[in-house]
Amino acid sequence: MDITQQIVSGDVRTIARILRDIDDELPSSRDILKELYPHTGKAHIIGFTGSPGVGKSTVVDQIATVCRKESKTVGILAVDPTSPFTGGAILGDRIRMQRHFLDPGVFIRSLATRGHFGGLSKSANDMVNVLDAAGKDVILVETVGVGQDEVEIANSAHTTILVTIPGMGDDVQAIKAGIMEIGDIFVVNKADREGSRKTVRELMNLIEIGLRRRNGEDWEPQIVETEAAKGRGIDKLYETIEKHRAYLQATGSQKWRRAAEKRTRIQLLGALRDRAFQAVLEKIEQRGDSIDEMVRRIVDRESDPYTIVQQIVDKGLS
Amino acid sequence: MDITQQIVSGDVRTIARILRDIDDELPSSRDILKELYPHTGKAHIIGFTGSPGVGKSTVVDQIATVCRKESKTVGILAVDPTSPFTGGAILGDRIRMQRHFLDPGVFIRSLATRGHFGGLSKSANDMVNVLDAAGKDVILVETVGVGQDEVEIANSAHTTILVTIPGMGDDVQAIKAGIMEIGDIFVVNKADREGSRKTVRELMNLIEIGLRRRNGEDWEPQIVETEAAKGRGIDKLYETIEKHRAYLQATGSQKWRRAAEKRTRIQLLGALRDRAFQAVLEKIEQRGDSIDEMVRRIVDRESDPYTIVQQIVDKGLS
Repeated sequence: MDITQQIVSGDVRTIARILRDIDDELPSSRDILKELYPHTGKAHIIGFTGSPGVGKSTVVDQIATVCRKESKTVGILAVDPTSPFTGGAILGDRIRMQRHFLDPGVFIRSLATRGHFGGLSKSANDMVNVLDAAGKDVILVETVGVGQDEVEIANSAHTTILVTIPGMGDDVQAIKAGIMEIGDIFVVNKADREGSRKTVRELMNLIEIGLRRRNGEDWEPQIVETEAAKGRGIDKLYETIEKHRAYLQATGSQKWRRAAEKRTRIQLLGALRDRAFQAVLEKIEQRGDSIDEMVRRIVDRESDPYTIVQQIVDKGLS
Repeated sequence: MDITQQIVSGDVRTIARILRDIDDELPSSRDILKELYPHTGKAHIIGFTGSPGVGKSTVVDQIATVCRKESKTVGILAVDPTSPFTGGAILGDRIRMQRHFLDPGVFIRSLATRGHFGGLSKSANDMVNVLDAAGKDVILVETVGVGQDEVEIANSAHTTILVTIPGMGDDVQAIKAGIMEIGDIFVVNKADREGSRKTVRELMNLIEIGLRRRNGEDWEPQIVETEAAKGRGIDKLYETIEKHRAYLQATGSQKWRRAAEKRTRIQLLGALRDRAFQAVLEKIEQRGDSIDEMVRRIVDRESDPYTIVQQIVDKGLS
């Protein structure tokens, strides 16, 4: 059996290897991704996002457990803002693995945020494609933070879930409003804490404002209170996720397709941006020019970044 | 007086106009940025980052007030994750303006996170350059979240400050470790809350781990407890910021220059990435190809994103 077939048949070791190759940006992984692509498009991709400390991982783990009870296979991709230096992602994998260790139906992988200009969302999308081709019924993608890349990843899911907790500060109203537009489901985790009802009410208000802006969509964002650590509210959350999937897949509806198009567009543009950037860096190197020297000239005010960029454009970007 | 001179002389209306032009990505702003560049390099650029709800804006406002007492002029740039749809950034500006409304020595501007693939950090850097050229002694750049772009912006400051609050969850240890490396100063805000000492201890432990990784730097990251809403701890924080500036600017030290180089490198690479991406999109349009059609073919599995990207590369990226 070749690699593609092994992945499609769900072979865990081969899946792990290709994900590692993607992470290492091995060019060989591209050919396999190409061959895998026709096998994608079946999984329900669910994005979870929210600030650090809201308990996203716990929510994700609990949802994975419910999926398994429903005999669905699960892929978990945790995009971790930990830098490559600290190895936090690997640590995270180990800790989380314990829970689902003996269950071959759950595949967990973390992806550490790269340094600058990182192609984070491209790698995440590629990994989701692998898990999709490998036949996972549900793929849970967890991103931390409200960062642009992270929101981009969460947004390129079929169902996007925003996790928050009570008392994250009344001053974040305006901030919350900004990411409201991408949320299909809102989870108020640690709902036993003081102020949970207040947070739910605030979210309801924000949803009302947001609804006016979610043109052409007739899904009303849902709010679910959970205490993920105790498993409370998880069944309700799972039901709500299923409700959203049913909504997207309703007969005659183009919504599932539109979600796929949104996802594909983000993926395609992200890949193009990365390739174009890579090409210009290669071009600069080929010409024997040096980024270090450019930086020196700018810092010494012999030139400025705008002139230098224009000179590079004039010499040709690729 | 031409526009450049007006900005350098600190004319508020001209500064506001050029910042708006940068936000709108008017090509004409580039020429002015070029002319302004020789006037930059004097300001102390301080980046503040942290999760939503930790009270960053309040800390920033209070530091601005202390700066004013010390007769320093201040520019504040708040990078707000609010989407362009909600207008949250503008709202934020208005609310914050009230505090410093009558003080011409403080210039405040918000920058909303753009949609996908946004050039957020490029615009932020350009705006910082304007404020720098305009003679602001201190520029406070506030970014929300632990996102890649936002961390990039915070990291391209001379002094990077991470703001947190007690009880943000014990489970975020690993996450915190990831952004530890860029923090020069750590603020535990809302320090009157339960668990503040514990958070400080955790940070001290993380700093010890982090120190081993901050090779070549002999600045030991400092921790300051604040209750920004009541102004408590702000003087201590200001002193610590000044201590860091003195460290960077110490006679014979190359540290200030190295910070400038780091900043310039991020700025240059970000600009190159944006231009290269823009060029490939223009090229696709020139050829009469359509991203929409490519997306359709990928979604219909007539092709795959990897093949499509390769075809674009083969036809030429610019």
